[in-house]
Order: sequence, then C-alpha cells, then structure tokens
Amino acid sequence: VKELIEVVRGRQRNGHRRATARLISLVENNPAAAREVIGALFASTGQAHIIGITGPPGSGKSTLVNEIAKQFRQLDTQVGIVAVDPSSPFTGGALLGDRVRMRDLSGDNGIFIRSMASRGNLGGLAETTGNVIKVLDAAGFEVILVETVGAGQAEVEIASTAHTTLVIEAPGMGDEIQSIKAGILEIADILVVNKADRPGSEKTVKALKMMLHMGDSSRVNHHGRKMVVLGQEAPPNPKEAAWQIPVLETVALDGQGVAQVVESVRRHKEYLRDSGEWLVRELARSRQEVRHLLQARFIAELESAVSESEREMVIAAVAARQLDPYSAVARLFDQAYV
Amino acid sequence: VKELIEVVRGRQRNGHRRATARLISLVENNPAAAREVIGALFASTGQAHIIGITGPPGSGKSTLVNEIAKQFRQLDTQVGIVAVDPSSPFTGGALLGDRVRMRDLSGDNGIFIRSMASRGNLGGLAETTGNVIKVLDAAGFEVILVETVGAGQAEVEIASTAHTTLVIEAPGMGDEIQSIKAGILEIADILVVNKADRPGSEKTVKALKMMLHMGDSSRVNHHGRKMVVLGQEAPPNPKEAAWQIPVLETVALDGQGVAQVVESVRRHKEYLRDSGEWLVRELARSRQEVRHLLQARFIAELESAVSESEREMVIAAVAARQLDPYSAVARLFDQAYV
Repeated sequence: VKELIEVVRGRQRNGHRRATARLISLVENNPAAAREVIGALFASTGQAHIIGITGPPGSGKSTLVNEIAKQFRQLDTQVGIVAVDPSSPFTGGALLGDRVRMRDLSGDNGIFIRSMASRGNLGGLAETTGNVIKVLDAAGFEVILVETVGAGQAEVEIASTAHTTLVIEAPGMGDEIQSIKAGILEIADILVVNKADRPGSEKTVKALKMMLHMGDSSRVNHHGRKMVVLGQEAPPNPKEAAWQIPVLETVALDGQGVAQVVESVRRHKEYLRDSGEWLVRELARSRQEVRHLLQARFIAELESAVSESEREMVIAAVAARQLDPYSAVARLFDQAYV
Repeated sequence: VKELIEVVRGRQRNGHRRATARLISLVENNPAAAREVIGALFASTGQAHIIGITGPPGSGKSTLVNEIAKQFRQLDTQVGIVAVDPSSPFTGGALLGDRVRMRDLSGDNGIFIRSMASRGNLGGLAETTGNVIKVLDAAGFEVILVETVGAGQAEVEIASTAHTTLVIEAPGMGDEIQSIKAGILEIADILVVNKADRPGSEKTVKALKMMLHMGDSSRVNHHGRKMVVLGQEAPPNPKEAAWQIPVLETVALDGQGVAQVVESVRRHKEYLRDSGEWLVRELARSRQEVRHLLQARFIAELESAVSESEREMVIAAVAARQLDPYSAVARLFDQAYV
C-alpha cells in the first residue's frame, strides 16, 4: 500500500493509472485501508475542482457529463469522473449511460472513470464517494465530475459537497419542472436545459428563469450563498459580486452548447476563488464529512460494547411496544458509555 | 400535554381531532416534548396499517393517494395521510397536489392530513415522520398513507419502513421506467401504472412485468423478502405462499382501478399477518428507528462535551489539509468519551 501511495502522490508516469485504480478499490472495499490511504494522501488533496452534476432521470446527464469531460480534455485538463448510481437487483447497476461512456472515453489516459453503486447504506456511500474523490484529487486529476443519477436528498447531499453544482433539466417531461418538485433546484450554481432541440425547451428555460426571479434576492440557500435574481445590476465592487445563476441550453448528443457550460464552470471557479466562497465550501464539506465519520465511528463503538443479542432484545421490546424508542436509546447508550 | 395525550389515547369524541393536531405540532417542533409524547403514546401504537407510496415526480401520486383515501373512507376506515414534501425556497413547499387535496378531502373527520417539508437534515425528517405516524396510530387512524414526493434513497427509506409499499409509475415519460433508474422498484409490494389512459401504458406494464421476471426468484430484497416472479405456480401450502407483486393500472383522475389497488392493499395486509412478515417489518422499522435516534443522541452528547469553537478549529484544520478526517474524528471522539 505504501508503494502505491508513493506512486500516486508522486504522480509518477509509470504505473500511475494502475496505482490510482488499486487505491480506489482499497478505499471502496476496506475501511482500515481507507483510513491509512486517506491519512497518507490527504495533505496532497485540495487542488481539484469538484463539480457535482445532478438532475432527474431522463435529463441526459450521462451524455452531458461525457461531453463536458471531452471539452476539458481539449483544454488539456486531467478529468476524473465519479458516477454514483443507485443499484437495482434487476439491472445490477449497469446502466446504458455507462456503456456509452466506456465506448466514448476509454483509451484516453487523461480521463479516469469510476462508477459507484449505492448498494447498502447511503451514509457509507457518501463516505466512500468522498474518499474516491480524494484519491483522484491526490493523483492529479484537476477536474472531478461527480454525477449522481437519482434526484433525492441523499444524492443531492453528495452533489452539494462539490465546489460547483450543475442541475440538469430536460424539456417535454410533462408540465412540471422535475427538479423543482424534487427540491434540488436550490443547490444549483449553473442550470442546464439539455435536449434543447426538443419542443418545450424555451418554456422550460423561461420557467427556470421565473423560478430564479421568484427566489427573493435576500434569500440565502443552504450553502450560505445569496440567491441573486437574474439580470440584476452588478454591484459596484466586482470582488463582492454575487454569482448569478445562468440558465444554459445544450444538446449533449451533438455537443451543442457544451463549450458554454464549460466556460461557465470555469468562471464559477474564478468567482469562488475571488469571493472567498471556495474556502466556505471546503469548510462545509469538511464539517459534513467529519460528522458522517463520527456517526459511523460511534455505531462501531456501540456495536463492540453491546453484544448483538442484547441489541436485538432491545429492538424486539420496541417492536412489541414494551419499550418506547427513546427509552431504548437511553438504555443502549448507557450500556456503551457509562 | 398530559391532557392532550389522554384525549388522543382515550379516543374521546370531543376535541380528539384538535388534540391530535396539537400533539403532532409538538412532536414536530419540540424534541423534548416529542420524547414525552411518544413515551406516553407508544404502548397504544402498533394497530395501524402503514402504507408507503412513492414514485417519480409526475406519476400522479398525490391524486392517487386521495382516491385511495376516499375508497378506504367508503369502507368506514379512519385514514391518516402524511405527505413528505421536499421543500424549496422557491415554492415554500406548497405544491399543487396539496391544494387539490385540501379541496377534495377537507371536511371529513375520518381523514387527517399532514404535510411535512424536508427542510433541514433528513435524519431529522425520518425521525419526525416516524413520530407523526405514531401519534396518528395511537389516535385510532387505522390506515396511514405515507406519501413521499421525491424518488431518492432517503424518501425510499421513509416509504420502506411501511408495512406495504406502493410504487407508482406513469407511461409516456420517455422510454425509461424512472423507478428502475432510481432503484426504487425493489421496495415495491404493489406496482401501479397510473395515467393508464395515456399512450404507452401497456408498454410500461409489460416492461414492469418483465423486470419482475428478470428478478431471479431466489433473489431476496432488502426487507428479507423473496422476490417471486409473476405467474409462478402457487406453492402447496398457502400459509407459506410468498407475495406475488401485482402490476395494476389506474386512472386516478376518474377513480378507475383504485378499488383494485385498495383490494390489493388489504390482501397484502392479510398476507403479512398470515406469514409472520408483519412482525419482521415491525422489527426492521424498530431497528432503523433506534439507530437513527442513537446517532442523534450521540451528536447531541458530543456537542455538549466539545465546545463549538473547538469543533470548528478541528474542521478548519481539515479544510486546510493539516489534519485528515479520520484523525479529526479520533480527536473529537476522545475529547467527548475518554
């Protein structure tokens, strides 16, 4: 493991790609190794621009992610892609987008792709995703695209720990804008209406712009950012200028509009650096990560302090309505920590 | 509070509805009161049939939930509806479905409706939703419909703690079946294709049935249930017969097919009782609930043991890459518990 870490951290030419892949497998599958690997690599992280990409199923996210990756490659940027896919017992997590992706992007050493399934508990997935991103960051990938397939809070949580978050919409999926219903619009730094050649695209763009206008300019989203309405006059001091969320149109299938998205992503990075917002987001990500790890550590400690049979007896008493959940928690907590 | 608890638990005629509403507000807004209320009511819970209803935005879930509620009312069943809505700073969480719902169902004392926003952290939402369900259960609501608007893991988690889970699909939202992509099909006890008068409905039904067939009959879903393929011969002993997931068609707007859904829900309850699966699900819910509460308790203890400024210093060191997250956790944990 130490050797692999040296190869990755040293960004050596030979065996670098294979070492990166092996470290990623380690942090995915072995919690003790994850601790060692992340401990050793962590000081080398913090260089990558982490870009979260989310939106409802059917919006064409995967294709758009591929096109964004290709654009960055033309700028000679090293690109990591982390695709967080919910797994299903039916498909085994092998989605169409993956196959297209492999055909499109494989063979380029400047791109590293990793798909992650959300099998098992989601807390674990957030932790593992964070660690995979760190390995890629330490390995020198300058842009890391984190694509989440679902549209729920948990996937949003993963995407929202990014520096820049893109929310993708598509026209013609009924009258509703799905991201509004799913409550994910509020994490967007950049809005993209993909499949813009379809009927209804203009309507969707208009609706999104209206939504941005409706967001009262004094409202602050969960990043602590002000949501500023589109088309508002720029404040006098450009250093203090808040970010104005653009609504862009793309046709990912033929690459149309993708250059503008990449341009917007790069401008957003500049804004983050200039405004000090970059550090704010680093702090938010660190806070969330430490919290998740603390909870996992706590559960592990509890499980070693209280035997499974004791725990199951308490659970059975709750299920039988002999013990209320709060009293059950007090009992387990006291057994472990007093 | 004691008086309110007596009124709710005693199922008294006078002031029962108002007392239920006030206890629900208490468990939603005041953690200390939640502990007291749930502690007092818990022994009176366990009677209600909890039905989770989920599916992608645009599938017409809210309308279908209303129609299911009306059917149960015709059977003289008391119905609680808990709608878990992701909130958005743009809409404030007041979705169209709610307005339709209020117009349709208000004025019937046998129905109690509560909308919950997923503002703030989701762990909190799962806890609060569980407590609201308990108050309704203790208050004598025999069927509790828990509708989740999103299609992510976290909403699925809430829906999956139900005794019976309905997954709603709609035809004509592109070629993909959205629940498959979002990985929520595997929690379904009953599949419903709503808007079945739209073109493409047959295709969607066929695709869902094929998916069920593809699920290898020995595959066990996350409830520990076997996924049994449709149309398989019934095993010899009907008491041991596994549940065969039906695929039903509805047009919620005019009530078409809703009676069959309600019939299927009632048959599923019988199956749960006869097979012992009811208790299995009670245990699973209790286990999950105790785990969530333990984590919340732990964080609260840590926050009282380690001052905010100390915690923020550790977070800042992580953000600056001076301390890796695992070492940060070890430091905080030791400060709180050694």
